[in-house]
Amino acid sequence: MGNSFGQLFRITTFGESHGPGIGVVIDGCPAGLPIEEDSIQRQLDRRRPGQSKITTQRKEADQFQLLSGVFEGKSTGTPIALMIWNQDAKSKDYSHIAEKYRPSHADYTYQEKYGIRDYRGGGRSSARETAARVAAGAIAMKLLEPLGIVIDAFVSQVGTVRLDEDYTKLDLSTIENNIVRCPHQATAEKMIALIEETRKAGDSIGGVVGAVIRGVPVGWGEPVFNKLHAQLGHAMLGINAVKGFEYGSGFAGVQMKGSQHNDQFEKIKGRISTTTNYSGGIQGGISNGADIYFNVAFKPVATIMKDQTSVDQSGAATVVKGKGRHDPCVVPRAVPIVEAMAALVLADAYLMNKSAKL
Amino acid sequence: MGNSFGQLFRITTFGESHGPGIGVVIDGCPAGLPIEEDSIQRQLDRRRPGQSKITTQRKEADQFQLLSGVFEGKSTGTPIALMIWNQDAKSKDYSHIAEKYRPSHADYTYQEKYGIRDYRGGGRSSARETAARVAAGAIAMKLLEPLGIVIDAFVSQVGTVRLDEDYTKLDLSTIENNIVRCPHQATAEKMIALIEETRKAGDSIGGVVGAVIRGVPVGWGEPVFNKLHAQLGHAMLGINAVKGFEYGSGFAGVQMKGSQHNDQFEKIKGRISTTTNYSGGIQGGISNGADIYFNVAFKPVATIMKDQTSVDQSGAATVVKGKGRHDPCVVPRAVPIVEAMAALVLADAYLMNKSAKL
Amino acid sequence: MGNSFGQLFRITTFGESHGPGIGVVIDGCPAGLPIEEDSIQRQLDRRRPGQSKITTQRKEADQFQLLSGVFEGKSTGTPIALMIWNQDAKSKDYSHIAEKYRPSHADYTYQEKYGIRDYRGGGRSSARETAARVAAGAIAMKLLEPLGIVIDAFVSQVGTVRLDEDYTKLDLSTIENNIVRCPHQATAEKMIALIEETRKAGDSIGGVVGAVIRGVPVGWGEPVFNKLHAQLGHAMLGINAVKGFEYGSGFAGVQMKGSQHNDQFEKIKGRISTTTNYSGGIQGGISNGADIYFNVAFKPVATIMKDQTSVDQSGAATVVKGKGRHDPCVVPRAVPIVEAMAALVLADAYLMNKSAKL
Amino acid sequence: MGNSFGQLFRITTFGESHGPGIGVVIDGCPAGLPIEEDSIQRQLDRRRPGQSKITTQRKEADQFQLLSGVFEGKSTGTPIALMIWNQDAKSKDYSHIAEKYRPSHADYTYQEKYGIRDYRGGGRSSARETAARVAAGAIAMKLLEPLGIVIDAFVSQVGTVRLDEDYTKLDLSTIENNIVRCPHQATAEKMIALIEETRKAGDSIGGVVGAVIRGVPVGWGEPVFNKLHAQLGHAMLGINAVKGFEYGSGFAGVQMKGSQHNDQFEKIKGRISTTTNYSGGIQGGISNGADIYFNVAFKPVATIMKDQTSVDQSGAATVVKGKGRHDPCVVPRAVPIVEAMAALVLADAYLMNKSAKL
Repeated sequence: MGNSFGQLFRITTFGESHGPGIGVVIDGCPAGLPIEEDSIQRQLDRRRPGQSKITTQRKEADQFQLLSGVFEGKSTGTPIALMIWNQDAKSKDYSHIAEKYRPSHADYTYQEKYGIRDYRGGGRSSARETAARVAAGAIAMKLLEPLGIVIDAFVSQVGTVRLDEDYTKLDLSTIENNIVRCPHQATAEKMIALIEETRKAGDSIGGVVGAVIRGVPVGWGEPVFNKLHAQLGHAMLGINAVKGFEYGSGFAGVQMKGSQHNDQFEKIKGRISTTTNYSGGIQGGISNGADIYFNVAFKPVATIMKDQTSVDQSGAATVVKGKGRHDPCVVPRAVPIVEAMAALVLADAYLMNKSAKL
Repeated sequence: MGNSFGQLFRITTFGESHGPGIGVVIDGCPAGLPIEEDSIQRQLDRRRPGQSKITTQRKEADQFQLLSGVFEGKSTGTPIALMIWNQDAKSKDYSHIAEKYRPSHADYTYQEKYGIRDYRGGGRSSARETAARVAAGAIAMKLLEPLGIVIDAFVSQVGTVRLDEDYTKLDLSTIENNIVRCPHQATAEKMIALIEETRKAGDSIGGVVGAVIRGVPVGWGEPVFNKLHAQLGHAMLGINAVKGFEYGSGFAGVQMKGSQHNDQFEKIKGRISTTTNYSGGIQGGISNGADIYFNVAFKPVATIMKDQTSVDQSGAATVVKGKGRHDPCVVPRAVPIVEAMAALVLADAYLMNKSAKL
Repeated sequence: MGNSFGQLFRITTFGESHGPGIGVVIDGCPAGLPIEEDSIQRQLDRRRPGQSKITTQRKEADQFQLLSGVFEGKSTGTPIALMIWNQDAKSKDYSHIAEKYRPSHADYTYQEKYGIRDYRGGGRSSARETAARVAAGAIAMKLLEPLGIVIDAFVSQVGTVRLDEDYTKLDLSTIENNIVRCPHQATAEKMIALIEETRKAGDSIGGVVGAVIRGVPVGWGEPVFNKLHAQLGHAMLGINAVKGFEYGSGFAGVQMKGSQHNDQFEKIKGRISTTTNYSGGIQGGISNGADIYFNVAFKPVATIMKDQTSVDQSGAATVVKGKGRHDPCVVPRAVPIVEAMAALVLADAYLMNKSAKL
Repeated sequence: MGNSFGQLFRITTFGESHGPGIGVVIDGCPAGLPIEEDSIQRQLDRRRPGQSKITTQRKEADQFQLLSGVFEGKSTGTPIALMIWNQDAKSKDYSHIAEKYRPSHADYTYQEKYGIRDYRGGGRSSARETAARVAAGAIAMKLLEPLGIVIDAFVSQVGTVRLDEDYTKLDLSTIENNIVRCPHQATAEKMIALIEETRKAGDSIGGVVGAVIRGVPVGWGEPVFNKLHAQLGHAMLGINAVKGFEYGSGFAGVQMKGSQHNDQFEKIKGRISTTTNYSGGIQGGISNGADIYFNVAFKPVATIMKDQTSVDQSGAATVVKGKGRHDPCVVPRAVPIVEAMAALVLADAYLMNKSAKL
């Protein structure tokens, strides 16, 4: 279980890294939405492997095929299914780890949970599965766009290289100007240098993706267990390699006093807003109309080009060789995934909110 | 919506701060589980207001009444409902904010979302709702106990006072030895002093609750969207005032190299384990048998004893007076809530995992 | 599990026949709905035991207490919980069957499934649970009323006494004119006579409840698995003692030819409608604006005043004595239950349909 | 929404009659289950169009492609997706009804609900969608088989030709001996003759499918709303053209007295069973170990070869020509669909029951 996400705008993904491909079914997309293949492909291209020198060199065009739910360019209210066929799946690359447990991968836990696993490229646990989310997210964005909602994710930290500026000081339109997707050119260059250096050392490194969502109306999110930030957190923590999530003032906010942290209300231009936004655009689990912003922590990728000590399925000591293609740092490619998951959460929150009041 | 949590061990809570009371229905608790009223009450007492000088002085015995699902001391497989009746609900206390939006509370967002709100004590958005979770969590713990699972949460930070020791260096049996619930007496005293000072200043302060779960077998958690840590994160972010969640290496892990961060497998005493545990006991979203540990960040409580600028429902500028009873810092009382939510996630993961393989 | 019903307008019931009481939590009721205690009580009174000479003589006022979710007479968007306390629960009545399996009751199956059961009055399997549904249904009706939807159920058959007239020939405003709730006085009298005769013989008898729903707009119901009639069928088959469900032409329709059965479209007074209505107001699982009508078959009540051969928990042969209070025929009291379940299905379908198109 | 079915063994179908194909994703199939392509294909062949002279002549091999979730012939616990590509999709056939509402089809209701529809062959509302259910059902059967569960559906009525024998008097191994799938040769011949005659007249006719499930252990099914028969009813009523469902004594049982209808318990060969089985193998919504049997009523197919009066999208009167390929009677091909849906319900009930008790 666990392969579906959302209540009303609900996606179910399937597929493995080295099987026929990766797919997704979207149930609950309202009818009449223009489904533009170009805009879906554009997002897939941002997540695609091999897009730059700092990503894995696996070659996948990641072109998708629409299987259902669209008629004459529009959603029909029936499930939208699409498939991204695998092309450059070199299964031979993985024969050397068929019986071995790679450190900090899902090999051991899948084997124990299921008693069987598709070991080729991590099978279902491969981050390749996120391509399906990106495609679905592109459709969710299409639903949000006319409401004036804009979602921007970017890399704010790689290893110890950290973007110190607050998002309000940055020009988010420059995110795609460099291959690391950091909207601050000088910092981006340091990040790229660090990733390259890490890659050359056969190692990997972690990072942080920040995200800002503007234009969400007041009232989205369901109280108590499905607070808007709880759903965002659930979504982000479901992305491969994520270790933490914080929104608004986050972990730093614990050091503040209530008198500093409280966002005072005021009415400006006929609209109630707050003078500060430590709340991160969400109060009581419900959007308050201010910018929603959050950070997502990614660990260093487990696949490295170094030999590592481990055990095989029998428990015997073994060595896992550093082989295959991998990303030295996931955050540049994680940017569109974070955006996609945010879009899915919001699309669902939007539809759920239609029933909030008479 | 959003008042239910869990798939197989599923709770639904109801009730407001100043209505008749707070209740919970548990559907899916396996039959035959001893339901001991004492152990439920013990957890409620740990969350209860007025338990020490550093918590709110609202007086609530928080005694509960079992309404269904238990026969001759055991669960019957039918829904277990229980009610915690409100006693010291001083509704008059809140008339002064009936029309005003308290800064960083849910007043404004509830009013906008629903067009109506029970303003007395925050109504449904009050942290009083978490009493129902604590009661349900006590039943979940009863299910986990015979499996050898132990859940310990504790206060690891209040404002800038931080417990620097790793949990492995602490004696978690001392958590209840002081009123702030920090298993390090010297640090606890500093925390208490800071909370008292904050209270006297009519202010509030944030904090961090750490948690450690031992004894979870390998294999719990559902891949992809319902990874065990995604469910834990969802659960924790649904607690009032929470701003962040991290597990294992968390946000600090982003600075590490893969070669450091990867947890090498080894076989010790016939059991596969790892030499380090940056993974935080979860790999690929599935428990690996090691300790699960995580941190939860709580903002400073929004209710303070200072006058604050705000607006009323019409948008007119107003002043919100500092009145009523409140906690200057929520983390001491949040400890049993964090434990309860963790227990609910694990009880559900346990039942879900029964179907993982033939 | 299985104690919740509905997706957006979602109820969870709890409670046993001889415990403290029966309750329900409604999550998802839109805010701003007037919650009139009188109209809820009116429905409960129609289901109440002891209401006439042809029903069980158990005395229950079936007065309910609102526990949450209502403020100043209106729903607030938070869960509405209510409780119907048990009063005339004579647990001693049931000691004689603590160890015995009553024929065609749920004693044996509950005992086997759960390894434990509350045998007093059938515990959770008692039809007393349906009081909670009736209360929730009254709230659902309040949501549907302003849309012009009218739900009428009535008794159309008791044993071999059958109402031959089609519902279109009946005056449904007369349903409450007699204690059996049949809108045809002559037939009603025969039904009452048969029930009385059956009661005197210490026996029970089955019956059919028919239902008609007028005013449902075009477009409600979700295709494929959650067709409107599949949801209605699910709802009705979940009522105690129900053995069958048919809608529109039903079982009789299988003998028809397509050329007879097809409902021709025509435009009358600017509105597309059909000349006949064998479809029963639903096509492709979606309401078409015509009357929705269906029948629900109820078996004879399992409790009878005759001694019956059975086994006890050890499997030893035993005799189950005919004792206690019971209904000789459930259909008169089933009428408000059928209406309530129909209202719950429609309230959910109404909210679900809000997301059907842009 | 509404394209998923089941809670733990959960399927989601997608696809239209004249798009690329029909697919299904199964989430929750336990790992380690042998997935035999032959046994899936065998079921698809039983549902396939063009299989005999009494079915539609649309030519579809209905061969399926596995997309995920199977490794070395076994399920891996990850979603199993499969696709049945459309081949003989003659879209031109349908251009004549692009703007017209075919009587008793879903054209009008889909158009009104969604504001758009794929009119080619009924799009999503086509019974072609059920191919996906049959494939998924074959996998569910594989899960049930080792438990000794056998599901047999058969045609028991076509128009007025009715199989009068009770299923206990029939040899269910002969179901596949004739093209109408009636396990009584003389009756089968009359049914075939009636279908042929109906087809020649360009008309269609209804029928009933009976089903018997043997070997279900005691304890499956969830009380209250998800009674085993409520889930079976939901499943059956979700099949295209179904108008009614009854189980056990069904509609006929309403005429019985409780003293006749009650199934007396006895212990035979060390096992508690009942002397009669009017309960249809389910008591209180939970299986009691006896045979489960039920009937499903199918209306005459709406597509006929006669001109019919109707309206177009503007509401203008029009004539729908009798054209295209269709089944004069759906029940022979509905037999494997009924079996598949029953298998899906049982697979889910099996997994759900794993959590019933400690």
